[in-house]
Amino acid sequence: MRSHTYPGNLYMMIGPSGAGKSTLLRRLIDEDPHLSFSVSYTTRAPRHGEVDGKDYFFIDRARFEAMIKEGAFLEWAEVHANCYGTSRAHIVEQLRAGEDVLLDVDVQGAINLKRQMESVVAIFVAPPNVAALRARLEARGKDSAAVIERRLKNARGEMEQMEQFDFLLVNDDLDRCYDELRTIVAADRLRLFRRRGLAAELLDHF
Amino acid sequence: MRSHTYPGNLYMMIGPSGAGKSTLLRRLIDEDPHLSFSVSYTTRAPRHGEVDGKDYFFIDRARFEAMIKEGAFLEWAEVHANCYGTSRAHIVEQLRAGEDVLLDVDVQGAINLKRQMESVVAIFVAPPNVAALRARLEARGKDSAAVIERRLKNARGEMEQMEQFDFLLVNDDLDRCYDELRTIVAADRLRLFRRRGLAAELLDHF
Repeated sequence: MRSHTYPGNLYMMIGPSGAGKSTLLRRLIDEDPHLSFSVSYTTRAPRHGEVDGKDYFFIDRARFEAMIKEGAFLEWAEVHANCYGTSRAHIVEQLRAGEDVLLDVDVQGAINLKRQMESVVAIFVAPPNVAALRARLEARGKDSAAVIERRLKNARGEMEQMEQFDFLLVNDDLDRCYDELRTIVAADRLRLFRRRGLAAELLDHF
Repeated sequence: MRSHTYPGNLYMMIGPSGAGKSTLLRRLIDEDPHLSFSVSYTTRAPRHGEVDGKDYFFIDRARFEAMIKEGAFLEWAEVHANCYGTSRAHIVEQLRAGEDVLLDVDVQGAINLKRQMESVVAIFVAPPNVAALRARLEARGKDSAAVIERRLKNARGEMEQMEQFDFLLVNDDLDRCYDELRTIVAADRLRLFRRRGLAAELLDHF
């Protein structure tokens, strides 16, 4: 499955939990009419305020394992003792309709997805340092102290994997980081394989 | 020779003569302190106002052929009965110094260069249609009527090659086209392989 056989394109954002991926991708989806979010499946419990079918599809482990067996996931991964999966059917439907799709994926899932879809654009979002990451995780107040320690411990390993991805953003200034994200998407839309229709039209005028 | 073994990166602009490549690349070089132009060698006669060593190195065919034999060119091509060549030593020196380099190359030269340096970013600049191209070639007043006819005849063949390159810009509005060119270069600088130093620095903070 190469995404450029579809009219839409697939982007994924990767990086340690707390790096600011969710904030960046929600802002981009709000402001860019051609981009949609793809809702993942997870076995983890909803955090306060999270809505089923909007933030995630919250399912139990038995259902998750059944979906793995059915080959329903384009990628799935177990992170911090919870499972996360991206529905193949859901994304293909969006890409076929010409929508660009943005995914929030963990490092392990991103590596699996990249193998299956080489044209996916993989954007790694890094916090500037471990102190900033700790401060953010504490400030958002979503995780217990033990979960925060586990996330910080995992962050180093995730950072070591960044070289496998296409772009690197450092989220030390949210507005600048957001502008850079928009620049990446805007440039991607100028790629020739994304403009085949336009290229054919131009040839008709020569 | 892969350009990402050097600190600088190489961009090339390709497209029919009269598409506006020179205007775009001069503006980008004027405004972007990290980008330099690489001066090509040519056997064609200088046009009015062109300066040797700035627009081109103007040399005769015997000297050009000697340079081919010496392997001095990263790419060379014969277009409209004139030869054009890009000096390997000149570019490598710029890339080693960490400068980004922008080349104005014809289609044939671009294909040769892409084979030797896979990480070169190839940007095709197309005029919106043949009437606009004719109007521009006539307006710039640099070519005889016979040369203009030959350029128009070649343009179709050049347009047919565009699918081989990375990006497509349509120059129907110079300012918009220029912004798109800047977006491509800005996004390219956010690529992970271009930010290895930053990536290593970040890891030190985790």
